[in-house]
Amino acid sequence: MKIPKAIQNLSESFEKLPGIGPKTAQRLTFYLLHNPQDMLEQFGNALINLKKETAICSICKNIGSINPCEVCADENRNKNIIAVVETPMDLVALERANFDGLYHVLHGAINPLNNIGPEDIFIKELVERLGRNTNINEVILATNTGMEGEATAMYIKRLIEPAGIKVTRIARGMPVGGDIEYADNTTLKRSLEGRGEY
Amino acid sequence: MKIPKAIQNLSESFEKLPGIGPKTAQRLTFYLLHNPQDMLEQFGNALINLKKETAICSICKNIGSINPCEVCADENRNKNIIAVVETPMDLVALERANFDGLYHVLHGAINPLNNIGPEDIFIKELVERLGRNTNINEVILATNTGMEGEATAMYIKRLIEPAGIKVTRIARGMPVGGDIEYADNTTLKRSLEGRGEY
Repeated sequence: MKIPKAIQNLSESFEKLPGIGPKTAQRLTFYLLHNPQDMLEQFGNALINLKKETAICSICKNIGSINPCEVCADENRNKNIIAVVETPMDLVALERANFDGLYHVLHGAINPLNNIGPEDIFIKELVERLGRNTNINEVILATNTGMEGEATAMYIKRLIEPAGIKVTRIARGMPVGGDIEYADNTTLKRSLEGRGEY
Repeated sequence: MKIPKAIQNLSESFEKLPGIGPKTAQRLTFYLLHNPQDMLEQFGNALINLKKETAICSICKNIGSINPCEVCADENRNKNIIAVVETPMDLVALERANFDGLYHVLHGAINPLNNIGPEDIFIKELVERLGRNTNINEVILATNTGMEGEATAMYIKRLIEPAGIKVTRIARGMPVGGDIEYADNTTLKRSLEGRGEY
């Protein structure tokens, strides 16, 4: 028996998503067959409108519904400080932590193994932005704390520090609720190096 | 900052899928932002057309692109034997194993804990079909071999056996490539009970 084309089409679309294999794709498709048509239309239209109703911010490269994005357009934010993040999802996470400055979204990290160099992410745009805007007096490097994130942070630090801007890096140490017994060596080392007055 | 409506809409749609939580939904949504618009349209239209371009077969309850479905309409199949399965995905699996008879898709299994009784799945339709069609001389119960599948098989057996139809159950034993050392007790017991001439 041939699987109906409509089922195959949707299955193949799901399969293109990261972390979804052929079996899961098929399971999701058959699950959706039991859902009302208006739920499918809502889902389908959300997909079709995703890019139409969003824009990449010309200032900070965040993805917003307007350009400049909601953060850059907000008059109440601290305009003297920029947090550099890898992805818009990292920005959302920092927003939840009540950061009230501006952002710069790199859309990736330097990763030579995957052929992603400094020119493939929005580093040049950050440097230009800092050159144009003399109000910025601190750049917080809030890239991930893995190898690629650290390499990216180091690269940006070397690039912008000569211009006399204060460059900081988010603290690396024990996460809240962590057990010292189970912490890895590098985290513990960083945690000792970064110790503060108590 | 408020997350753009378009991103939130799609994220919420993904979240409704089984096994996809808020974090994965967000990750998938941001992943799709980096995809071309025509890929999104293809995906969206596949969702919108899923139910429009499929039909539930009036004979076997399989989901096909025509009614009766491709299996029931195929003149070359063995019309004397019916395999009873829980879902259309099980049917696809049996097709891959080259089963050439007909099917009956129950769309579920009896599961009292989830309030699914015999009347909630297509058991009545199976009995009616067997009553109408006197060519059927064997019904293979190919429900899953877990608790719900076994209960469903037992229920159907008791219901249709008095009518004089031969009822069989798929063999339960060691899967091919299995290690006896690691097999669970019930599987091993079934495997011994069902042993065959060698």
